[in-house]
Amino acid sequence: MLSTADAEVIRALRRNGQISRAEISHMTGWSRAKASQEINALIEKGYLVEAGEGISNGGRKPRLVRFNNQLGYIVGIDIGATSLEIALADINGLILRRVVEPADVRQPPEELLGRCSRLILDLAIAYGIHPEQIFGIGVGVPGPVDFTRGVLLAPPLMPDWENYPIRNFFKETFLSAFVVVDNDVNIMALGEQHSSDAANLDHFLVIKIGTGIGCGIMAGRKIHRGSDGCAGDIGHICVDKQGPICRCGNHGCLEAMAAGPAIAEKAMQAARDGKSELLQKMMISNGGLLTPENVNAACREGDEAALAIIRASGQMIGDVLAGLVNFFNPSHIFIGGGIANFGNHLLIAIKRAVLRQSLPLATTNLTISFSRTGSDVGVIGAIMLALEYLFVVKDDPHYSF
Amino acid sequence: MLSTADAEVIRALRRNGQISRAEISHMTGWSRAKASQEINALIEKGYLVEAGEGISNGGRKPRLVRFNNQLGYIVGIDIGATSLEIALADINGLILRRVVEPADVRQPPEELLGRCSRLILDLAIAYGIHPEQIFGIGVGVPGPVDFTRGVLLAPPLMPDWENYPIRNFFKETFLSAFVVVDNDVNIMALGEQHSSDAANLDHFLVIKIGTGIGCGIMAGRKIHRGSDGCAGDIGHICVDKQGPICRCGNHGCLEAMAAGPAIAEKAMQAARDGKSELLQKMMISNGGLLTPENVNAACREGDEAALAIIRASGQMIGDVLAGLVNFFNPSHIFIGGGIANFGNHLLIAIKRAVLRQSLPLATTNLTISFSRTGSDVGVIGAIMLALEYLFVVKDDPHYSF
Repeated sequence: MLSTADAEVIRALRRNGQISRAEISHMTGWSRAKASQEINALIEKGYLVEAGEGISNGGRKPRLVRFNNQLGYIVGIDIGATSLEIALADINGLILRRVVEPADVRQPPEELLGRCSRLILDLAIAYGIHPEQIFGIGVGVPGPVDFTRGVLLAPPLMPDWENYPIRNFFKETFLSAFVVVDNDVNIMALGEQHSSDAANLDHFLVIKIGTGIGCGIMAGRKIHRGSDGCAGDIGHICVDKQGPICRCGNHGCLEAMAAGPAIAEKAMQAARDGKSELLQKMMISNGGLLTPENVNAACREGDEAALAIIRASGQMIGDVLAGLVNFFNPSHIFIGGGIANFGNHLLIAIKRAVLRQSLPLATTNLTISFSRTGSDVGVIGAIMLALEYLFVVKDDPHYSF
Repeated sequence: MLSTADAEVIRALRRNGQISRAEISHMTGWSRAKASQEINALIEKGYLVEAGEGISNGGRKPRLVRFNNQLGYIVGIDIGATSLEIALADINGLILRRVVEPADVRQPPEELLGRCSRLILDLAIAYGIHPEQIFGIGVGVPGPVDFTRGVLLAPPLMPDWENYPIRNFFKETFLSAFVVVDNDVNIMALGEQHSSDAANLDHFLVIKIGTGIGCGIMAGRKIHRGSDGCAGDIGHICVDKQGPICRCGNHGCLEAMAAGPAIAEKAMQAARDGKSELLQKMMISNGGLLTPENVNAACREGDEAALAIIRASGQMIGDVLAGLVNFFNPSHIFIGGGIANFGNHLLIAIKRAVLRQSLPLATTNLTISFSRTGSDVGVIGAIMLALEYLFVVKDDPHYSF
């Protein structure tokens, strides 16, 4: 952990390349003596390196310093309900190696995290670096996270993980690493922010539609985690009080009405009711079951029943977003996650519902689009999360580790 | 406008009373020479004054400076749909004089704002100060505000005010004043934050229930205004797609279903349908009309129909808040505005709906209570708004005036 001023110097150097001690003194308002002392300490810690001499303005040539790009490496881990993605990046966040594997998050945490550790070691060996050169690990998990403690709280998809010390697990193997844990939609929002288009957006939302429905909130260019770290849990906003019961115990939650399992369930009902021959055939050849992917395939073949189901999901998601647009007034909403990949029918239904119901003032400049960073957005965000906290301002009350 | 570092010095002095030049140099990291230069400039501008000599640590006695408490005065203006409150405060935000008057916001802006100016001059004369000693004016208005331009945008209650230059209006009379305009719920949130209980809350909401329903959002201890300045407009979140038409053109908006006019309308219907003798009597003696205050009075006398109407409003407001609690995860919700004064029946109905429908993780530490600062909360917030921007950090991109 660095002091506020040290972190600022490092950030400035990461932006500007190499600068002189005098420029740092000017930038910070520090006296020459203090600037020299601080810079020497940062060199000693390995954050900065000498970068030769600059051009003289008459007197002695200024001695330059720059950020140490070989300081170490960063790992991003994106744990989804059914998949796992890990990437090794340099200290600037550039991905060097990555691996994607299917995974089952209902496994005990030791097993899944043990596999993550082995995959990280494999990536490190493949790239020829030592595990102690890994300086930061960012982890995204599909459930509510107590951000300051780095643990999952009441995670519906993965009950075994409640309060499991994810951070310590990685710290035991990667001794030099600073580990940060956050939920999957927050790292998506960070990944989106890192994409060139979203870098200058103050307020935006990222919606992940898959097995569940979650929302990452960027407020004033910072992730809004709320007072218990569970902000963005929009999957359990009520859409229909008379709707089906949800795994949270309430009726008609958005997730129970519009997410992947609901789409599959409605398609099976449509098949049973004889509303679609195609869905019926798929269900028979699937051993009596349909997946959301089947519904998507049927939709692509022009099946009316499948299309109606996708559109209805989009409309319900849009109805909820319409309210959130009035409340939060974001400039952009990015739609991602497995179900979002189903394409334009869903996106158009979402847009229509928002435009019909939100106030004109809040929608005039609003853009709703697919998540732009693509499927890597989570792992990129996990890398950004680690980078952000590696050079963190330790006296910020919101960053109390 | 001050530089970042100057504003920080002033804030530190406002907190700490008097300190020495050496302490300021230590605090800012400035060299002694730079610190002296900056402090002398601030003394010249009138922000700081010399405060004698401190205790010596062996050498020369240190020369102290302190914030100039006589620098000037601050005015807070809270314009409501039907009332107007103005307060004169010292530079620490302590209210010295205040005035409350009925007002009709449908008046042309010149008339209402002209009255505000005259009332401010009256307060200044009564307290014995010159108008040029007024350094800051904070104004709250009941409609969506473009915060950077200080004008109302598409205000439904007051169409004549659209784009009217409120800031310039006051600047012409009060030449030394820095004028900031915001909407009524945002200044309520600032007023609430200033109350001792809420001072340390990171994330909270203030709900104003009156002729309309609005929400002030405190996110990370800052007002969240959204990307078009219209965040918090929760009155037009849809509660019932089959509901009555709202003045925004949509059906079943929260405001059209649960705010003051809807309460009065439902009570008149109940009276016409013979569901309450008391409401019938009140309506006859009122010339065929009922006000929300009539419904409240009937409720206090135990009238079942009136009670059911108030409870139904509370439940609808609570249903919407339940979704916002899942999304935003605030630690506190403060309920204020004219209708909130109707008492516990409304508050209990709101609480019940939120607790029933929000996720346990988001409600375990959630407090829902009446706005604690009482009826002065708006005008206190307007004063705080002016104070905040009087010593503002001019290079913060969010504060671009």
